[in-house]
Amino acid sequence: MIDHTHDAAASSWVEGADDHADFPVQNLPLGVFSLASGTRHIGSAIGNYTVDLAGLADAGLLPDALRPALCAQTLNALFRLDGATRRTLRHALFALLTDPAQRAAVSPWLHPMDQVDLHLPFAIGDYSDFYVGIHHATNIGKLFRPDSPLLPNYKHVPIGYHGRASSVRVSGTPVIRPKGQIKAPDADQPTYAPCRRLDYELELGIWIAGDHALGETIPITDAWDRIAGFSLLNDWSARDIQAWEYQPLGPFLSKSFHSTISPWVITAEALAPFRVAQPARAQGDPSPLPYLWDQADQARGALSITLSATLASAAMRESGMTALELSRGTARAAMYWTPAQIVTHQAANGCDLHSGDLLGTGTLSGPTRGSEGSLMEMSQGGKHPIRLPTGQERCFLEDGDELILYARAERDGYRSIGFGPCSGIVTPSRS
Amino acid sequence: MIDHTHDAAASSWVEGADDHADFPVQNLPLGVFSLASGTRHIGSAIGNYTVDLAGLADAGLLPDALRPALCAQTLNALFRLDGATRRTLRHALFALLTDPAQRAAVSPWLHPMDQVDLHLPFAIGDYSDFYVGIHHATNIGKLFRPDSPLLPNYKHVPIGYHGRASSVRVSGTPVIRPKGQIKAPDADQPTYAPCRRLDYELELGIWIAGDHALGETIPITDAWDRIAGFSLLNDWSARDIQAWEYQPLGPFLSKSFHSTISPWVITAEALAPFRVAQPARAQGDPSPLPYLWDQADQARGALSITLSATLASAAMRESGMTALELSRGTARAAMYWTPAQIVTHQAANGCDLHSGDLLGTGTLSGPTRGSEGSLMEMSQGGKHPIRLPTGQERCFLEDGDELILYARAERDGYRSIGFGPCSGIVTPSRS
Repeated sequence: MIDHTHDAAASSWVEGADDHADFPVQNLPLGVFSLASGTRHIGSAIGNYTVDLAGLADAGLLPDALRPALCAQTLNALFRLDGATRRTLRHALFALLTDPAQRAAVSPWLHPMDQVDLHLPFAIGDYSDFYVGIHHATNIGKLFRPDSPLLPNYKHVPIGYHGRASSVRVSGTPVIRPKGQIKAPDADQPTYAPCRRLDYELELGIWIAGDHALGETIPITDAWDRIAGFSLLNDWSARDIQAWEYQPLGPFLSKSFHSTISPWVITAEALAPFRVAQPARAQGDPSPLPYLWDQADQARGALSITLSATLASAAMRESGMTALELSRGTARAAMYWTPAQIVTHQAANGCDLHSGDLLGTGTLSGPTRGSEGSLMEMSQGGKHPIRLPTGQERCFLEDGDELILYARAERDGYRSIGFGPCSGIVTPSRS
Repeated sequence: MIDHTHDAAASSWVEGADDHADFPVQNLPLGVFSLASGTRHIGSAIGNYTVDLAGLADAGLLPDALRPALCAQTLNALFRLDGATRRTLRHALFALLTDPAQRAAVSPWLHPMDQVDLHLPFAIGDYSDFYVGIHHATNIGKLFRPDSPLLPNYKHVPIGYHGRASSVRVSGTPVIRPKGQIKAPDADQPTYAPCRRLDYELELGIWIAGDHALGETIPITDAWDRIAGFSLLNDWSARDIQAWEYQPLGPFLSKSFHSTISPWVITAEALAPFRVAQPARAQGDPSPLPYLWDQADQARGALSITLSATLASAAMRESGMTALELSRGTARAAMYWTPAQIVTHQAANGCDLHSGDLLGTGTLSGPTRGSEGSLMEMSQGGKHPIRLPTGQERCFLEDGDELILYARAERDGYRSIGFGPCSGIVTPSRS
């Protein structure tokens, strides 16, 4: 891969960008922002600035073919363009932000990040959520079936289910504690009450590029061409509602009250250097069926991304304490199935996927303690509370808790890039 | 209920409308059609004609407040209007179509039904599917648990799950047999192959009107105000794919390959006379929780709608044979939970619902043989084939089979109204 946009030595004239943890010029994520006027524009992030891509396009600084799509209020049209056309954006933007001669022309389109509101990057057509985190599936399975935590289909089928698109919100939106039907194991009857076992789930969200017709499939060799990029996804989960409702059709209201996405789409192009070999299958693991198997995907279809989650209770924030890191792990170690396998499987029955569809990976837990992607796993079903620096304890989330997910693509020889935070503060149920 | 639009004696000047089985002037369903030019217009159905509501609005024949919404290409904006405003449409249209003095003004906007293409009535935001057909749940449950077919939550929770919105298609669209992972009970490994147990599911689809914000709920007393109307829904199902994939997160690719909806929205106003008492709960059935309980809903929240399904194989159609009626039953006898309970439950966790969301009832089977809403039930899991008039047998659908669902609202003293067909022909898997 020879692509100068990944050159670790590349430098931007934008103040602070070269030292920025998440958004150096090697990243150039895409998103949607607004200024005080409220109009939504497509933008990118460079250091502590948002750059207005609609403005750059209007000023004639970006390829003309991109202009109509860049003047939209979501990324859907941009990612409906063919891959070659949309990839010209990264190179043009990289050139503008690394060439000091462009400073005067581009600077009017830079806005300090703290002066913009960030929005959902896409109008989400459909949201589905997978379950490819094998250690998560194992940890959860053990709570019900200690001797055989994984079901027989797990290593054959990338398990997934449909989610709710309407309730996906951008990072920073408060999360209202859901109410629902809850039945304590020893109770005769359920009650309708605020959730008492509110949890988070640390996931990556895969954004789809392009469209295909109903009845067509996506060969695994084409799957990466259908991936626009990735965001962090917190699939907030009401464990008590889930336990009572999920048989026989799966989770429903325990999930659909809110899902949080980080605002910046880290593009497939930006992540290209961080695609690495998928871990070898364990002894005895079945070979994937041919439609899910691509040697090249095994060689560089996994993501070298570090994931972490932090918690700060209201009392911690009031005392000025640093948030507690709950977990840290990697996407590669967590994911039994690759992003390409997820995308190919979703369309394997002929289901049509469209630009802006969102596919969650499912909770990405590592194989060891300290890398779990949910409190359900960390507290082992609510039995072993986590101790906060204030002395407070948590098996599940309390009102006022702020949960933030982080992700960072890292690999020797490359400038690491970050996703930006995916955060939410839990607020009380409505009365 | 005194509303002259339900007067059984009302007569339309449109030729044949008074004798039309589905679309007399008492119905006035809403949908989206196009002529050869291709532009989509909102329309209604009267006898064998589609009436162009955008045309009538442009001509000043309908209330001005409706005009922007009627000039859209889907019904979403119309059903975002407040109920009082949108209900003026029914009365205005009824007046135009019953007053012979309006014939000259209205006739230019009538198009014979066989000259129009019908489309999805809404841009569907989210589609979810319930499981309120208690006899269906019992029939399916018996295949797995003969002694306790219903799970403990069934009579407390209106069970549902998220579906796929992108693959909903209008009646008449061919249904491509899906491929997927299938594992025979005696096989060591799954294969990726065309579905061998393709089934239909006879359902009603509930269309949502209006919007509410995330975190808010819909009190059951307000639920009917959030129902735009109903269509027929065929939730085509790949039983072999479903059996292998559905644990632990529910049906996924076994459903998302195609769902068929009938094109006309039979409005809540049209169905008002057909709302009747919900059947009394059986001895021992639990009381619904208060958020799901409304005495008025019990008194007139069930639907007096007759449902049926017919099958015609390619050989039957080639021989000019009439389609075989597979089943006949009623929505009222099938539904353990009312439409209002379904809508209220879907939002009970604060999930936001929007105009054009689609909520399926789940398969509506009656309590007796001959009223099952799927082949899985009729053939008892594929063990007892149905004999067609050609001598062919069916446990599941074969390529070339045409499956048509019908629904008719019927009640003494009222002119019955129909939904129009919900049809699909099965075509072979793509190679």
